[in-house]
Amino acid sequence: MDNFTFFNPTKIDFGTGKEQLIGQHLAEHGIKKVLLCFGSERIKRDGLFQTVSQSLAGQGIEFIEFGGIVSNPLLSKVREGIALARGHQVGAVLSVGGGSVLDSSKAIAAGVAYAGDVWDLFIGKATIDSALPVFSILTLAATGSEMNSGAVVTNEDTKEKFAIQSVHTFPRVSIVNPALMQTVSRDYLVYSAADIIAHCIEGYFTATLQPTLHSRMVEALVNTVIDSTETLLDNPADYAARAEFAWAATQALNGLLYAGSAGFNYPNHMIEHALSALFNVPHGAGLSVIMPAWMKWYHGRNPAQFQRFAKQVFAVDTPLQGIAALEAWFDKIGTPTRLSQLGITDADLPAITDVVLGNAQWFGIAEVYTRDVVTEILKLAR
Amino acid sequence: MDNFTFFNPTKIDFGTGKEQLIGQHLAEHGIKKVLLCFGSERIKRDGLFQTVSQSLAGQGIEFIEFGGIVSNPLLSKVREGIALARGHQVGAVLSVGGGSVLDSSKAIAAGVAYAGDVWDLFIGKATIDSALPVFSILTLAATGSEMNSGAVVTNEDTKEKFAIQSVHTFPRVSIVNPALMQTVSRDYLVYSAADIIAHCIEGYFTATLQPTLHSRMVEALVNTVIDSTETLLDNPADYAARAEFAWAATQALNGLLYAGSAGFNYPNHMIEHALSALFNVPHGAGLSVIMPAWMKWYHGRNPAQFQRFAKQVFAVDTPLQGIAALEAWFDKIGTPTRLSQLGITDADLPAITDVVLGNAQWFGIAEVYTRDVVTEILKLAR
Repeated sequence: MDNFTFFNPTKIDFGTGKEQLIGQHLAEHGIKKVLLCFGSERIKRDGLFQTVSQSLAGQGIEFIEFGGIVSNPLLSKVREGIALARGHQVGAVLSVGGGSVLDSSKAIAAGVAYAGDVWDLFIGKATIDSALPVFSILTLAATGSEMNSGAVVTNEDTKEKFAIQSVHTFPRVSIVNPALMQTVSRDYLVYSAADIIAHCIEGYFTATLQPTLHSRMVEALVNTVIDSTETLLDNPADYAARAEFAWAATQALNGLLYAGSAGFNYPNHMIEHALSALFNVPHGAGLSVIMPAWMKWYHGRNPAQFQRFAKQVFAVDTPLQGIAALEAWFDKIGTPTRLSQLGITDADLPAITDVVLGNAQWFGIAEVYTRDVVTEILKLAR
Repeated sequence: MDNFTFFNPTKIDFGTGKEQLIGQHLAEHGIKKVLLCFGSERIKRDGLFQTVSQSLAGQGIEFIEFGGIVSNPLLSKVREGIALARGHQVGAVLSVGGGSVLDSSKAIAAGVAYAGDVWDLFIGKATIDSALPVFSILTLAATGSEMNSGAVVTNEDTKEKFAIQSVHTFPRVSIVNPALMQTVSRDYLVYSAADIIAHCIEGYFTATLQPTLHSRMVEALVNTVIDSTETLLDNPADYAARAEFAWAATQALNGLLYAGSAGFNYPNHMIEHALSALFNVPHGAGLSVIMPAWMKWYHGRNPAQFQRFAKQVFAVDTPLQGIAALEAWFDKIGTPTRLSQLGITDADLPAITDVVLGNAQWFGIAEVYTRDVVTEILKLAR
């Protein structure tokens, strides 16, 4: 096992009705005024907004509304949120939504505390020395952002989709109520399944030092995602499955799967970020296209681990059978496995490759992922 | 899944050489003087004491030595530590040792901050409202105390072995260097294996609401303990196995296995605590005797889960085959499976039962664990 430091101070308040406690959680941290970040107006129609505002009012906490955050969240919107938060001198940022709203909230929280432009924090021009405290109520389980310190934002001018990470951007409290996720669309459920599986398998396959315990944990999570997704496709109201799906999503990226593992990287995310930055495809949909293609290209570099995956997840024998089984499962649940399903044609491949090569610098794996290699992987995804 | 709140603020600094950083960790928390708790003088012979004192000196941190803490740590010793900590006005408690030293350190930290007698905190006469910060360097992986807020202490006057738990008693930082555990005796290695397995399976078998994800996590940990124990018995210097064993121990009792599970209890610990309180047997040795006996008595109440255990851990088919396989594995590694191996005879059973019945009140399961039931389980362990 590699040396590591594990620290995750986020408090998770999980279960039915927990969103009613958001006011208390904020009050316990001495918060008087928050920037309330959200996406569409749906939370006003389904009652969540009212629940939250009542809980805040009950503790005498003011809030400033900041809606309209979109999937693959945009830098321009983050800058707007920073200005609003400064103007109103809020004491915290409260995210009510999925990973995009939460990532934007973290970026706003860090940006408020930084004198320069927030993008500096994404490109390594400056470090995050402090941030407003972040709180969240999660409405979509996928990204794991509720229990980690990362945030991914797209710079729409440069088409770069980059991340920040800092001890200051862990949410103080994240409320995860699986019942709030019951109305997630069928499409977003299956995209989320692909996203969680991607978080699990990036390190699993790429690490040069991967403890067996970590592999077993990955397999426990992936098998849980597979089982609970199938249950939810049959019955979206199944609370137990919704809860297992949500808690698996959280644990897939709270740091435990990577603590002690070494030499890993995130090639599938690196490639997918180009798809969502250029074509605004849902992140999970992009990942379900890229993963089988990448695995077909990569498996010979780590055959024992691919065989392990085949056996432990799909009860088949060979690496290629395991990859085929994953692809077949993506097809079965209805998340795309081909670029054509995303409306991407061969003519788009050079532009995608250009962006991937830029990402490869940022991800630190440009030596391996050359133009030829990226093109080869993309062709396997046609 | 049951509603839950998960919060674990302990920072784990894991790996080779990490004990050299203890001074820095304390300095980051503004600590100037610590009570340095330890067990035998062994740490002075093997160099660890010197490493720690140098690291403290490097940050200008004073320390007061408090050695001689024994396995199944005693209330009298905790009281002595509280007096010493108060007399020297230390700012923190530093544990250098295994679970017994760490549990004593937590009890001292809580006791210093409480005006009355520390045992009040164990019997529910008072609650823990604050505590000195606790830091630890772990030398034996078993109890999981390095990443939880619990502490178990024996009151030698009343023969009660009870626990405290509080948000104030999480270690701020725990240093886990598997290389420091290389010299753990063969006996204590196998007792520790039994202890970790007990932490995993108590909830797994007794919960009335047990998510499949949690069962999978338990199986991942138990399989890791089995594999790494066997490797270490062959080669105590195998760092990778030592590290997997240690990290599995930490994760078995850091709260994750129980968050979302419901209706579970700790009957094996309840019964074992009587053995170690009365006969001072090593906790893990007591557990490896009690577990197979308890499982033989209990399995009919949760047959599906016992079948799952049989299949996922030992690749056998029936509950009884799974229990037999666990007992055989305990025999194989050399941890006791019979009361007689602990020097306990039939004449001792009434006295043990008396103490267990007292414990059953504290554990909240006295209705199920009557004198007849406890006697039956103990007879299965003869």
